[in-house]
Amino acid sequence: MKALIIAAGKGDRLGLTDKPKSLVQLLGLSLIERVILTAKQAGINEFIVVVGYLGDKIRAELGNGERYGVKIDYIENEEWQRENGVSVLKAKELLKEKFILLMTDHLFEARILNDLKKIKVNGCVLCVDKVPKEYIDLEDATKVKVENDKVVEIGKRLEEYNAIDCGIFLLSPIIFDALEESIEKGDELLSDGIRILAKKGEVRAFDIKDSFWIDIDTRDSFRKAEKMLCDRLIKPTDGPVSKLLNRPISIRISKFLVKTELKPSSISFISFILATLAAFFFCLGNYLSIVIGGLLTQFSSIVDGCDGEVARLKFQESEYGAWFDAVLDRYADALIIFGMVYGHWALYNNALIWVIGFITLIGCFMNSYTADRYEAAFRRGKIRAGVRRDVRLFLIMIGALFNQIFYTLIFLALLTNIESMRRLIILKDNKI
Amino acid sequence: MKALIIAAGKGDRLGLTDKPKSLVQLLGLSLIERVILTAKQAGINEFIVVVGYLGDKIRAELGNGERYGVKIDYIENEEWQRENGVSVLKAKELLKEKFILLMTDHLFEARILNDLKKIKVNGCVLCVDKVPKEYIDLEDATKVKVENDKVVEIGKRLEEYNAIDCGIFLLSPIIFDALEESIEKGDELLSDGIRILAKKGEVRAFDIKDSFWIDIDTRDSFRKAEKMLCDRLIKPTDGPVSKLLNRPISIRISKFLVKTELKPSSISFISFILATLAAFFFCLGNYLSIVIGGLLTQFSSIVDGCDGEVARLKFQESEYGAWFDAVLDRYADALIIFGMVYGHWALYNNALIWVIGFITLIGCFMNSYTADRYEAAFRRGKIRAGVRRDVRLFLIMIGALFNQIFYTLIFLALLTNIESMRRLIILKDNKI
Repeated sequence: MKALIIAAGKGDRLGLTDKPKSLVQLLGLSLIERVILTAKQAGINEFIVVVGYLGDKIRAELGNGERYGVKIDYIENEEWQRENGVSVLKAKELLKEKFILLMTDHLFEARILNDLKKIKVNGCVLCVDKVPKEYIDLEDATKVKVENDKVVEIGKRLEEYNAIDCGIFLLSPIIFDALEESIEKGDELLSDGIRILAKKGEVRAFDIKDSFWIDIDTRDSFRKAEKMLCDRLIKPTDGPVSKLLNRPISIRISKFLVKTELKPSSISFISFILATLAAFFFCLGNYLSIVIGGLLTQFSSIVDGCDGEVARLKFQESEYGAWFDAVLDRYADALIIFGMVYGHWALYNNALIWVIGFITLIGCFMNSYTADRYEAAFRRGKIRAGVRRDVRLFLIMIGALFNQIFYTLIFLALLTNIESMRRLIILKDNKI
Repeated sequence: MKALIIAAGKGDRLGLTDKPKSLVQLLGLSLIERVILTAKQAGINEFIVVVGYLGDKIRAELGNGERYGVKIDYIENEEWQRENGVSVLKAKELLKEKFILLMTDHLFEARILNDLKKIKVNGCVLCVDKVPKEYIDLEDATKVKVENDKVVEIGKRLEEYNAIDCGIFLLSPIIFDALEESIEKGDELLSDGIRILAKKGEVRAFDIKDSFWIDIDTRDSFRKAEKMLCDRLIKPTDGPVSKLLNRPISIRISKFLVKTELKPSSISFISFILATLAAFFFCLGNYLSIVIGGLLTQFSSIVDGCDGEVARLKFQESEYGAWFDAVLDRYADALIIFGMVYGHWALYNNALIWVIGFITLIGCFMNSYTADRYEAAFRRGKIRAGVRRDVRLFLIMIGALFNQIFYTLIFLALLTNIESMRRLIILKDNKI
């Protein structure tokens, strides 16, 4: 299925002078790049972009879409100062089958399109938000009245409404006739065309429920979009230290990193280098070095969150990236434990620390191994983990600050091995 | 879809006196249990079993099928001494839709049924083997002549044929009319009924290609079936030591274990205990102990193959079992390395061995981790491994026999860590 993207407008309210709204950068990607890459996640690979105001800049930026792994064609709308219905109508000759219609300034979650694509109806479908999120600017939104899943009325000034137009459509070519009819009457908005079809009962409403979407019209909504995208980086599986300490910091760092060319796998590597440095300082064994080692350990743990965040924000997630990050994390864990053991042994020459270090290393590895092997074996969901890496590394920092390497290792050895035993037992009972 | 199983015959040629052929034990399960559990793997959960000779024993043994997680109904054929077409006809009133027909003495691979179930035709389908395997008794087989995927002739005495009847059918109820017609004429074989349909062009031939099947009629074919089932336990991913040394021994052990009530997870645990004992002997440090430790290590590695073999032979494979085995293997590896290091250190008091042990432990863990994490991340296939556990444990045994714990650990440290690096690199390039 093809997607038509309307990117002809100027976007006055964002206060732009030198570029079209489509090219406004939001967390390392332009708005239109975000729309295209989101649609690509939902399996859409062919796009027709209607350009107008500074259209050449958009063409120069996106090209034929090759570098995004998609195909992009362009339609020029020289009458871009007219309303958006005119832009949609320009695509009439190119779209003879069902297509997706998107707005360059409406960001959304891929699952909306995934669901929308699956709907089997003859007419048109409009995505609506029945319980508008608090970040939606209601005053500026296009309102919709829905009855029995059908759109019965649509417009900005609607007094009686029960949903908001999300600017995401599944359309059949009948929309073009409707637009011609409404434009002839002087009503040039896309919603004027939709209204004509709605009166005929041809427009179904699809409730996006709690999926994310936002219309970026003003500086305020721009900031809200940025915040929303960042908030969505927090994973429900994040451990307590990650949630309270690491994420707030790592997201700030990622907001900077997305503007650079740094790849997620390079960030994974930086986190690994930080851990290696931490291990080196632990090896030195004196209190100052141990404190530095502890702080570097925690910093490495924080940066370890950035690779995934940048990957998600820039649509660069990959299976290799996830694997590479996990493998480096295991080496980092091992190096840090080795450093702690070696530094302590060099100072006190107590061989017992090696035995404890061995047990700690086994425990830490097994915590990661049991969780990841679980995913390989069960191919669904994640293990219910009691202790994760965020907690382990945080404990190492705390232990280092108090100069208690010996007891930190003993505590970690117990904690991690007990956690592994717990997993062997709960999984055996649940058989899940 | 339901399956009809013909289990009425006596099975004279196996020389049985006290039980019907269906209940002959083959590698821990009776023939009919194997047929039912194979069909269950292909998603068939309802069975109708036609019993005759000593049918009560079959009923008593299988019950209503609950303990296999299926539903089993029975039909009594008191005329079991007549040919098998009579047994099939007994099911006429119970089968009004398409069904699978199986023979209690024909073993086969689940994927044949998986494919057969998917064939959309109106008439009947007969599974045939176009290039009969060397273990098939051609003289006794029912021959089939196939032209353009249609069965045109069938019979034991056929002179001109190009396929063998595998005794696996997808039938529609028209078979019952055909059987009535042929039995009336005195031809009581199932193939006599099939022949009538074949003449009308109603029987399609489905080539099972290289899938496994065997008809167990004689003691000789019984032994061949046993060998085939065992040979299929060798995995294409088995490492060299596993292929040449471990499997030949572990399969012999498994052939004994399937006759016991031991569960696969108990066998995993026994292998773990053997590794723990090996670690204990390594800890003692003297040469004799080290030799015992090395031999126990190799023995543990061999027994580690039995859990999967017994699980496959007895249809007891489970996700938890695979996970449990993998987790215990990691603990076993760690304990063995710890034992080697501790024993050497206790004797020579050289702390360097701890550093080497740490690196070895990391390398061994990372070999397992990179492979299993690969499965979790990529969700398809396995990593191309250069060195696996079979080789690592074999090297430990060899090193122990030569009393070279120190150099064995150094060699393992290098081998395993280089292997991990290799994986990081090949995966990065291939992006697979």
